[in-house]
Order: sequence, then C-alpha cells, then structure tokens
Amino acid sequence: MSAFEVKSDPQLWEKLGMDVARFTGMPAMLTQAYTNIFLAQQNRPDRMAYFDGMVENIHTGRIHELMEAKEAGKPVIGTFCVYIPEEVVVAAGGVCVGLCGGAQGSIADAEKVLPRNICPMVKSAFGFKVGKICPYFQAVDFVYGETTCDAKKKTWELLDEYVPTHVMEIPQMKRDKDKALWLDEVKEFKVAVDKITGTETGFDELSQAIVTINAKRRALQRLNNLRHHTPSPISGKDMLLIEQIAFYDEPNRFVENVNALCDELEERIKQGVAVAPATTPRIMVSGTPMALPNWKLHNIIETSGGIVVNEESCIGTRYYKDLIDESSTTLEQQLERLTERYMKIDCSCFTPNTERIDQVLKEYEESGAEGIIDYCLQFCHTYNIEAVKLRKACEERGIPFMAIESDYSPDDVGQLKTRVEAFIEQIKG
Amino acid sequence: MSAFEVKSDPQLWEKLGMDVARFTGMPAMLTQAYTNIFLAQQNRPDRMAYFDGMVENIHTGRIHELMEAKEAGKPVIGTFCVYIPEEVVVAAGGVCVGLCGGAQGSIADAEKVLPRNICPMVKSAFGFKVGKICPYFQAVDFVYGETTCDAKKKTWELLDEYVPTHVMEIPQMKRDKDKALWLDEVKEFKVAVDKITGTETGFDELSQAIVTINAKRRALQRLNNLRHHTPSPISGKDMLLIEQIAFYDEPNRFVENVNALCDELEERIKQGVAVAPATTPRIMVSGTPMALPNWKLHNIIETSGGIVVNEESCIGTRYYKDLIDESSTTLEQQLERLTERYMKIDCSCFTPNTERIDQVLKEYEESGAEGIIDYCLQFCHTYNIEAVKLRKACEERGIPFMAIESDYSPDDVGQLKTRVEAFIEQIKG
Repeated sequence: MSAFEVKSDPQLWEKLGMDVARFTGMPAMLTQAYTNIFLAQQNRPDRMAYFDGMVENIHTGRIHELMEAKEAGKPVIGTFCVYIPEEVVVAAGGVCVGLCGGAQGSIADAEKVLPRNICPMVKSAFGFKVGKICPYFQAVDFVYGETTCDAKKKTWELLDEYVPTHVMEIPQMKRDKDKALWLDEVKEFKVAVDKITGTETGFDELSQAIVTINAKRRALQRLNNLRHHTPSPISGKDMLLIEQIAFYDEPNRFVENVNALCDELEERIKQGVAVAPATTPRIMVSGTPMALPNWKLHNIIETSGGIVVNEESCIGTRYYKDLIDESSTTLEQQLERLTERYMKIDCSCFTPNTERIDQVLKEYEESGAEGIIDYCLQFCHTYNIEAVKLRKACEERGIPFMAIESDYSPDDVGQLKTRVEAFIEQIKG
Repeated sequence: MSAFEVKSDPQLWEKLGMDVARFTGMPAMLTQAYTNIFLAQQNRPDRMAYFDGMVENIHTGRIHELMEAKEAGKPVIGTFCVYIPEEVVVAAGGVCVGLCGGAQGSIADAEKVLPRNICPMVKSAFGFKVGKICPYFQAVDFVYGETTCDAKKKTWELLDEYVPTHVMEIPQMKRDKDKALWLDEVKEFKVAVDKITGTETGFDELSQAIVTINAKRRALQRLNNLRHHTPSPISGKDMLLIEQIAFYDEPNRFVENVNALCDELEERIKQGVAVAPATTPRIMVSGTPMALPNWKLHNIIETSGGIVVNEESCIGTRYYKDLIDESSTTLEQQLERLTERYMKIDCSCFTPNTERIDQVLKEYEESGAEGIIDYCLQFCHTYNIEAVKLRKACEERGIPFMAIESDYSPDDVGQLKTRVEAFIEQIKG
C-alpha cells in the first residue's frame, strides 16, 4: 500500500495554463488524505486497485487522455449537474467530465469574487477555475451549466468571464409544457457539442452512446445492489469513491472495472467476506451531492461504528437509477426518450417533488438501512427545505432520521462526529 | 400627531381565525414604531395624512373592505411577487394583496418549521400564516406563489398545508420559448381566479383593469420623478411607505391620493420647500424588496445624514417602471401584451440579467443620486451574486457603491449605521 502515490506532471500542468507553483503541493496532500481515509480500511476488495489507480492518475493520466481526445478534434465538455446529458457528448466521440468541486482548498479563491454564504460546491468549483488549480477545468472546450439552483445559475454568469459557459434551462416543474422546453434545450446542447466536431451526430452514434451510458448506469445499479447485502461486502467510502469516479472516467473502461468488482463482491457474499460485521448499524445518506474529494460525512460515519449502505444523491442513485429506452427508431425519438429519462431525476429544484420522498423510502427499504442521515450542503435552500417533508415522512414510519448541514471545512468535524455517534447509538437501541 | 393610532378590532380578527390574544399587542407596537420613524420627521407633506391613515387601518378598515369583496363573491388573492399579474384579479372585480413579510415578529414562528438560514422575507411571510398573526393571510381565498427563488419555490410546498397555494412557474430565461411557457402560466392564473367568481373575465373587464393598474404605476412614476428633485420634497422613508402601501390599497383610491400628493410636491418644488437641504448626500437603494414594515435601512440612512432618492427594488421601480400596452383588440392580445410587460421586470432570478445593470445605472442618473447602497436580504443568492456585477459596473464609472446584506433583526443596526455613516462621509468627500 505504501506504493500508492498521486502522480505529478508539472509539464502537463504548465501546458494547461495552471498555477503550477501552487498546484505542486496538491498530489502529496491528496496522497496523504487518500491513504488515511481509503487505504487504511480493513479488508478492501482487491478490485478497488483500479479505482485507487484512477485517483493516482487523476491529475495526470486521465488528463492526458482528455488532451488526446481534444487533439483529435473531439469535444471535451465540463458539467456540474446530472441533468446535462453526457450521452450527447459521448455520441460525438467526446468526453464529458463533472467539474463539481468538493475541496476546501479552492474556497478562498472563490470568496475573492463570490459571496461567502453560498453553497461550498459552487464556490469550490468556481475557485478551482479562478485559482487555475484544476486540470479538468483547464482542459475543457467549454462548460455547460444549468439553472437548477440560484447559486449555480448566477455563478455561471461570472464563470463565463473565465471560461466559455453555456447554460441549459432546466424547468422547475414537470408538465408537458416543461417537457417541450426541456427537449428543446437538449437539442441546443447537441448543437453546441456538434459544433466542436463540425459534424452532426446522427442516430447511430447517439444509439451507441445511449447503450454505453446505460451500461455505466446498469453497472452502478448492480454494484449498489450487491453492496446492499448484509453484511456489506464493500464500504460506503469505496462506493462513494466509485460514484465520484463515474463522473470523470472513460465509460467503457469504467463499466468493465465496476463489473469486475461486482464479480468479486458476488464471490465475497458467497464466502461471507464482509468489510464490517452484520451487526454494524447501516446508514443511508440522502440529499446533496458529495463531489470529489468530499469524503467528510462518510468518513465520520464509518469511523464512528456505522457503515453507509446507500447514497440517495446526485453522486449516487440519482445518477444511475434511470435508464434511457434503447428501442428508438429515429433521432427525434431518441432525444425525446433521453429527455424523458432525465426528467425522472428527482432533484429538489423541482416543485412539487413528491416522487423524491417515495424514492428515498424505497431506497431505504432496498438497502436494508436502519436510519437516514440527510446531508445538505450549506446554504442549499431546496434540499434544506425539502428535508422538512422528508423528516416528516420518516417520523411517520418510525425511521430514524437526522439532518445535517455542512460545508468542506474541518471545523465542524468534531461536532458532527458527536451527533453521528449519538445517532448510531440510537439505532443500536 | 399624538392622535395617530393603529386601530384594533379583536372581533374581526376572531372571525378571521387569528391568534387574537397574541395579535392584540401588535397595534400598539406598530403605533410606536411608526410614530418614531415616520411622524417624527420634519416638514412632511400634508398629503401623507392619507397614507398615515392606511397604516392606522392596516389591520381593520382595509380588512373590512377585503371581507366585503369576499362576501360579494369576489376573489381575494395573496401574492408574494411582482410577477403575479394583479390586472387579472382586478379584472375579476377582486383584490390582490402582497403578503411578503417584513417583520421580525413572525420569524420565530417560521423557524419552528423552516431552516433558519433562508431569506427573512420568506420566513416572515410563512411565520405570519403559521402563527395566525396576519389578517391579510387569513382573508385570502388562496395564495399564488411563484418560482423566482429556491427558498420561495420550496416554501410554497409547505405553505400549502396551511392555505391553498398555487404556483406560477416563472421561467429563468427570456427567450421565445420562455415567453410561450410564461403566457400559458398567465392563462392558468386567470382560470384559477375566474373559478372563484364563476364567470370568465372578458376583454372589457381586463381592458379596464389594465387601465387601472397602469394608472397606479403611472402615479408612482410621477411621484418618483418629483421625488428626484434636488432638494427632495419628500423623504425616502415616506416614498418607501407609499411603495409598500401600493401592494394592499384599493387601486383607484390609491391613485387619487398619490396624484394629490404629487400636486402638493409640485407646489413644494415651486416654493422651494424640501425635507432636507440640497446638500444632503443623495443615496439610491438597489436590490431586494423591503416589505412592510421593513424600514430598517431607510431609517438608518435618513438618521445618518443622508436621504434616499430611489428604490431600484420590487417594492420600488421594478413594480412600476413598465406599463402594459393598452391598445389590444382581443383578449389573447391583451394577455400576450400583459406577459410582455411582466417579462420586462429585471429580477435577478433571470440569467442573464444584464438589463438590470443598465437599469440601475439609468435610475442612478435620473434620481440625481450620489451613491448606491445595494441591499440584499440575507441568504438571497441571486441578488447577492448579481451584486458582483453591479459593483464592477459602478466602480468602472466611479459611482460610490456599498453592498449590505441584512435581515430584520435589530442586532446589526449599530454596525450598519457605522458603515452607512462612513459611506455618507465618503460621498461628502
């Protein structure tokens, strides 16, 4: 395990226009954090080695692949939300990368421009660009934002001064007229992506891309189902890491490696190999996304005697619970069915959004969880207010429920740990 | 002046299902605040007497008028936003009242349900209903919310458990497809309003309503133009009060009284009568709305040696700067032109929203202001982030600019006063 090391490539970073002097310390910091949080775990599946490798190459190997795609005239698009359809980018032979920020290190950069009291994920992402300390941000042709929350919607206007930023309008309701507007937005996105290659992606390419991304979502579904086994054959932290890597890895390779891990987990389950005893309190996390390297809550839970068995989150089931119907016969139909699939995502930005409450309860049952910790990124109004309804639904069913709101700072870790420990004790009864 | 007294009517409040015991102390508190903030001003225009009367009758006389309309089968609709077209309600012979909350007193009620770190205006409004301490909230048939910000959008879902709450989807961009959706929303609003009377409002009624509300906006424009005179013939506090009363008074009577006040101000200007010397630093306020009785910032500015000469705000110019074209020949055309007028409102909820920056600069010129204080309700992400652009635009033009973010609590008054005094000193040079 001592061989693990997040790799450096100052020459590549220089080429990308990064602040190399400042970024140079990053790999060692990440190596240390990853070693403490992930490699220190007992009895990890062997197949996690691939994902460890993805972290080792996060600032080097994968960036080289992005640059190769770019040099071949393929689009490299940065996004911040599961509502931007990556199938369209993959159809054009391009790469879609999630740029959500999960690090405290770039917050101060952002706060030189943005207000302090907005979402840490938005600030972290913006800060990465402003500080020139994210190779992905530097590599993309453009970014495609969306209007899912106030903070993001308005930040894209400012981000556009640093990198070309297009915005997809995501409606706030899900009626027929909203679908019509949405479908049109998807078509505009396709036009923007196709502009880079100079050729219009057709039925066959989109068909193949839908199969590819469906396979990615299916693999994650399979993994999450296996992970629900009691006792869990994989930790919540490792699952979260894989869900995070899903946003920047090459899809086919990722599918192959997730499925290989699934094979191993099936074997583990047969042999009764687990990462924690069956009696370990099983926690489901719901709420806002945890962007790489935000492992704060999972690490707190899994070092406080619990195990995380589900992420009802954008970086979690919201990303992979729904598939696109593959039986379309025309491009128009493909885009319509794609839109229908994306409209099933139950983000709290919608009103009403009752299906999300049902989905949380369904995942709670399926994951064999014994309590829900609802995670809200600080100042995320929509999830924070929706938590009122979620709490009520859980209380009515006797489901242990705790809501936490947190940012990326280490300041509240002690306090959170105390609360999480008390919650786990409550579950143990 | 000692005759001023906000009136009580426990019998009426009882009938409205209010928490009478708790509400009984409210009139005396408001009497005192109003006396200190408004009546203590020197040299007020005589015609402010009407508006003083509107405050005296805020919980009694005006409520009786609402109840009379209701008993006559007319719709009484509560709204929270200048995007809900009151013309439609007036066309149906009904009453449209703004329910935005501007009081600290109901915040604690709201925080029993809602998160603490959201907009005080949303919390105050919600708290008024939950605590049953607002006769307007009790009198309405239903409320019509909208999707202009995350906090409001999600709070309407919870509010619906206390009072029937419909929601108009306001798009987040202003392209043709957004207009199509918007127009459809306006039509749905009309259907909801017409349902109460049981008759479909036609061309003639809407025509008359458009004339009525245009007259209200024109009267406010006239007043604001007169107010821009140096030295100002009316205080910023009195102007703000009138802008607030515009949201609950009967429109025709209001127009009559605003115009009578304008006549008086014209006379004052001729005779050189002013509320403060011409040398008094002239401050324009921009940003988020100040709902009744939120007089905090204006009171700070005008007791710190400055005078407020413009409110670029929903409770301010955003409410009255645009008129509806009155030359339509069909109902469909009326609704379309109405929608076009509403689409001109430059709320920060839109992206992009560059026209607002231009509008602020225009109003700055027109009002003869010498500095801008941008006011942001706490946790209002859209205005808070848009302030970054506004500050830049002001700095480029050498316009003194200060951004403040505040809630309804008295806790920061001392600190704000210090900052405002320093800002005014800076203007004085």
